[in-house]
Amino acid sequence: MAKGDGSILVVEDNPDDQILTMRALRKASSHSPIILQEDGQAALEFLFGTESSKRSPQVDTLGVILLDLKLPKVSGLEVLRRIRSSPQTDWLPVVMMTSSDEPHELREAYRLGANSFVTKQIDYSKFSEQMCLLARYWLTVNQVPMVGSSRSF
Amino acid sequence: MAKGDGSILVVEDNPDDQILTMRALRKASSHSPIILQEDGQAALEFLFGTESSKRSPQVDTLGVILLDLKLPKVSGLEVLRRIRSSPQTDWLPVVMMTSSDEPHELREAYRLGANSFVTKQIDYSKFSEQMCLLARYWLTVNQVPMVGSSRSF
Repeated sequence: MAKGDGSILVVEDNPDDQILTMRALRKASSHSPIILQEDGQAALEFLFGTESSKRSPQVDTLGVILLDLKLPKVSGLEVLRRIRSSPQTDWLPVVMMTSSDEPHELREAYRLGANSFVTKQIDYSKFSEQMCLLARYWLTVNQVPMVGSSRSF
Repeated sequence: MAKGDGSILVVEDNPDDQILTMRALRKASSHSPIILQEDGQAALEFLFGTESSKRSPQVDTLGVILLDLKLPKVSGLEVLRRIRSSPQTDWLPVVMMTSSDEPHELREAYRLGANSFVTKQIDYSKFSEQMCLLARYWLTVNQVPMVGSSRSF
């Protein structure tokens, strides 16, 4: 994938965090499409499809996934495990997000193959700066496999 | 580990790239100790020790490893494999660095557990900006397990 043209998948259930995250990412990366899924089950359906629907073609455009740790229906760690278990998605950069220090989950997330783990800043200006650095790093510095080659990965 | 106080291990054999990388990182993160190892074997001895010497105590202070793909003696991918195989080091963020597009190695690096993959910019000002974002992201935004807990990870 050419650098800088990836989209961002945000998996976040908290309405306040959704608004703050989307606002901060929009400010940091105005040209990158941002996709929101509100729980773990919805994220899995977006990534893998269901019995009656195919996975979203937008999966091939992703540059990074911001995955909240605590999600309804299916937990963030289980979504991560599924992402790493499929050759269609195991190349995708996943940044686990949490609102509080979670030492056990931090270690578990790395063990399951998270690329990065971020504790959200409470102060909005600091949170916005975090999201700015995060979007710039994963969309302009990091490199992911070319779309197409990922499927035989 | 408290954010922002991690050190950086650079594993790089090319003398020009060593100078440019150290200069750019120093500019980006003047307070972070930067440790240089010049080949894969030296990196492994630093991280794991030898029959006659213990591993470096500086390993516990690391916030990120910048690991060149092509290294003498032991390749970057083999160093990465060893890092991910040991409970003493498998939590360490590893950014693989390369000077040219290497689609096969890119996929292999992610498969072996690299956190990120970066193709170095040739233009020095762009390279310096890359290193600045890289150091800020991994040392101030990303979180790694507390030193001590890592050993039982």
